Amino acid sequence: MIKMFKSQPNKHKHETFFREILDQLLLGAVFDGIDRSAPVLRWKNPDELSKLISLELPKKPQTLEEVKEFLLNVVHYSVKTGHPHFVNQLFSSLDPFGLIGQIVTDTLNPSVYTYEVAPVFTLLEMELLKEMRSIIGWEKGDGVFCPGGSFANFYGISCARYRFSPDIKEEGLSGRKLVLFTSVDAHYSVKKGTFLLGIGTKNLVLIRTDKQGRMDPTDLEMRIKESIDKDLEPFAVVATAGTTVLGAFDPILPIANICSKYRLWLHVDAAWGGGALMSQKHRWLLRGVARADSITWNPHKLLAAPQQCSVFLTKHESILQDSNSASATYLFQKDKFYDTKWDVGDKYLQCGRRADVLKLWTMWIGKGSEGLEEHVNTLFDVAKATVDEIKSRPENFKLVLTTPEFVNVCFWYIPKRLQGQENSLDYNENLHKIAPKIKERMIKEGTMMVTYQPLGTRPNFFRLVYQNSELTCHDATFFLDEIDRLGRDL
Amino acid sequence: MIKMFKSQPNKHKHETFFREILDQLLLGAVFDGIDRSAPVLRWKNPDELSKLISLELPKKPQTLEEVKEFLLNVVHYSVKTGHPHFVNQLFSSLDPFGLIGQIVTDTLNPSVYTYEVAPVFTLLEMELLKEMRSIIGWEKGDGVFCPGGSFANFYGISCARYRFSPDIKEEGLSGRKLVLFTSVDAHYSVKKGTFLLGIGTKNLVLIRTDKQGRMDPTDLEMRIKESIDKDLEPFAVVATAGTTVLGAFDPILPIANICSKYRLWLHVDAAWGGGALMSQKHRWLLRGVARADSITWNPHKLLAAPQQCSVFLTKHESILQDSNSASATYLFQKDKFYDTKWDVGDKYLQCGRRADVLKLWTMWIGKGSEGLEEHVNTLFDVAKATVDEIKSRPENFKLVLTTPEFVNVCFWYIPKRLQGQENSLDYNENLHKIAPKIKERMIKEGTMMVTYQPLGTRPNFFRLVYQNSELTCHDATFFLDEIDRLGRDL
Ligand SMILES: Cc1ncc(COP(=O)(O)O)c(C=O)c1O
Ligand SMILES: Cc1ncc(COP(=O)(O)O)c(C=O)c1O
Repeated sequence: MIKMFKSQPNKHKHETFFREILDQLLLGAVFDGIDRSAPVLRWKNPDELSKLISLELPKKPQTLEEVKEFLLNVVHYSVKTGHPHFVNQLFSSLDPFGLIGQIVTDTLNPSVYTYEVAPVFTLLEMELLKEMRSIIGWEKGDGVFCPGGSFANFYGISCARYRFSPDIKEEGLSGRKLVLFTSVDAHYSVKKGTFLLGIGTKNLVLIRTDKQGRMDPTDLEMRIKESIDKDLEPFAVVATAGTTVLGAFDPILPIANICSKYRLWLHVDAAWGGGALMSQKHRWLLRGVARADSITWNPHKLLAAPQQCSVFLTKHESILQDSNSASATYLFQKDKFYDTKWDVGDKYLQCGRRADVLKLWTMWIGKGSEGLEEHVNTLFDVAKATVDEIKSRPENFKLVLTTPEFVNVCFWYIPKRLQGQENSLDYNENLHKIAPKIKERMIKEGTMMVTYQPLGTRPNFFRLVYQNSELTCHDATFFLDEIDRLGRDL
Repeated sequence: MIKMFKSQPNKHKHETFFREILDQLLLGAVFDGIDRSAPVLRWKNPDELSKLISLELPKKPQTLEEVKEFLLNVVHYSVKTGHPHFVNQLFSSLDPFGLIGQIVTDTLNPSVYTYEVAPVFTLLEMELLKEMRSIIGWEKGDGVFCPGGSFANFYGISCARYRFSPDIKEEGLSGRKLVLFTSVDAHYSVKKGTFLLGIGTKNLVLIRTDKQGRMDPTDLEMRIKESIDKDLEPFAVVATAGTTVLGAFDPILPIANICSKYRLWLHVDAAWGGGALMSQKHRWLLRGVARADSITWNPHKLLAAPQQCSVFLTKHESILQDSNSASATYLFQKDKFYDTKWDVGDKYLQCGRRADVLKLWTMWIGKGSEGLEEHVNTLFDVAKATVDEIKSRPENFKLVLTTPEFVNVCFWYIPKRLQGQENSLDYNENLHKIAPKIKERMIKEGTMMVTYQPLGTRPNFFRLVYQNSELTCHDATFFLDEIDRLGRDL
């Protein structure tokens, strides 16, 4: 008898189990389950869902049949983030090449720290990181796949700090007065980085943005000067290429000039916008990006790789090694028989590290860089079509930015009751309540998922964000019609 | 015609592609490919491998057939970390339940930050974290799945720092003199944490260990007093439950008493040893663990969950929220229609976050907690059998610890030439060179993978580490025989 506790698959025992679940998965989560005709989600509140999904962790093993039932139930009640009508976040889609690359990775279950344990993944990582650097415009440098863009931003700030003052690695921040700059519209991970790295939020200076949401270089220079006057230590600027909400691109060139002038590290958070570099037509949005010292780029966002696929890149060849090495001899033995430059793990902050490269690699060979370009261009086209459609329906819809630069389409839905009331005192307050109400109905019906948020003094507005190149202008019409249907009576 | 660039699977186009690859994967990486009769790896040095694996990122798409060939090649040349004779790292195995849970997760591709996007995964996480806390002995608290135990240790140090002085979140470390304590045998991530968090390595005090590799509480107290005398600010101790190399368990109770006396946060790094808590027979190794303020526990190590499955747990209910919250309104809107306590993301340092819960959950229901216990007990039994076998072969093998506490079995192999030379001056120097040579032969033959390392003044020794409950005492004999075969003539 095969014992069920054993941590090794057994063909005799598990083959049918695997095959049956894989069959159902292909149906329920890869093909039919994310067809436009299927629901995006089947909403249940936490109490209801707790009853529908068995939340018991039993003492005795369940049968294979029970385990299978449980997993299919998980599929049934989970949000289908691969559904074309899931446009709620900066990730979506279920790329076929990405998915199979991910599944192959899982069955090999590697950890990328030494060549001996992950030879293929090590080579793929090095090559892909090199290619991404060359797309940025760097001939040399280094990089690492990270568990998310937030983490990649932490690397950026940490490398900048090391460059500014290498002795901080040993001495710590006691007695230092480091100051970091980013825009008010930057991603919140920059702020979290200042907690984590011991810099402190009050030493994060938030720079003004223009109407499109782009960092104002004049304000930046003024604030840098101010902090120098106060005897503080400015050390880095985090610019954003593709802000989270508005999709704005900070003007990298003037910012880079300021960074050169004051000898500050320039980190460009292109977590969201980095994918635009794949397109000859749209890469101008990041012009000057090669001037950056380091970059965050999440292929799991615009390029629609599976979660997570996030990259930190720098043009400084030895900074990751210098700033992060701890030379643990139990793992990075120097008396190995092969050249230990291939053991990359000592350079990184993680020890065990999942291989996030194969999914992107598989997408790249399955589509070619031209296919990735076409993917990106398609997203811009659908965004443009959406903007045009919104403009053609001025009674109900109002754009937040009349000409968005990127694939974020932000707009207010104005139900009949509020039309023509723009000048009334409580207009904004009323408008602010519309999106959450529509969102509630949308989620409960499960027909699509679109997010909303306020920004600065702007009341709640919807944000469509495109990463799924399956989308067409018909989907754009669907999104607007559906919002109209759900919100008309509000 | 279906365009190949689209980020959406198409049944017509991709079904055969998926099925063929999955078939080959089951064969090559899940069943036959990790049978004892198959090689653990097919060694190629980086140059050779670069030719065998196509490292080209093409402009034009490859055919589905070519993509398939590439992926199967990746499988062929990758190390089979699920093979029973891969005992090189603190992770191994390919748990059947873990694997299928992971694959289901991938097809759903969630990010666990809001309930609306990941309802099922949110509930599963909450429940499993609660269960793990209750196994530790805590009635309340909080926790998070992390991208690795290193990251979990960073959370521990970060929470400790916040507790010590909440204003550091805003003010930063300027003007502070924080000091952290851990043992000389602690995992290197503690040191990396001091770089990252801005504390500085010189403010990490390394405490002496006894012969078994356990932290010496007397030395700890002395060093704490010393730093108080120097007007520094001791704030936390990181104890280890299961050290990386020797598998030692720091004595938590006396350490906890010292922490209480000096009001220090106690973080227990049980990344490796945490799994022993599942066993009634072996959980005494962590006695006193409920006294800790926080814990790192990697189910992907001893419990053999797929990479990565790492948990940070704390008994303090609001500390994650207090120390990490940035209240981003674009994601964590407070005007949602459901109770936003279910939107857990604001508490964490990451934004997008992979779901690492389902693989462990599936293992738990497939085996029951009793099965997990049997898994752990089996590993201890095989380790004990290995120790006994080593003792029975005293001419060739010498244990580093005569009675190891855990499933790390560390030993020297002594080839004929060195036998009886213990007193010669260059004995250690010669012995130091043996393990790397055997390792080279082992890797080139591909029959197994066992790691070696030096420790302190001890010359290189082998370390067998067990996480695969498929292993039996016959495998232990195989490991020793094989080392003997490979090293006899050295
Ligand atoms: C501009 C920007 N930077 C960084 C991030 C963080 O990326 P991740 O969610 O992978 O941590 C995001 C996430 O949306 C983002 O929009
Ligand atoms: C004791 C200990 N703590 C922490 C870690 C780090 O865990 P991870 O590799 O998941 O970052 C390890 C890794 O081996 C370890 O042995």
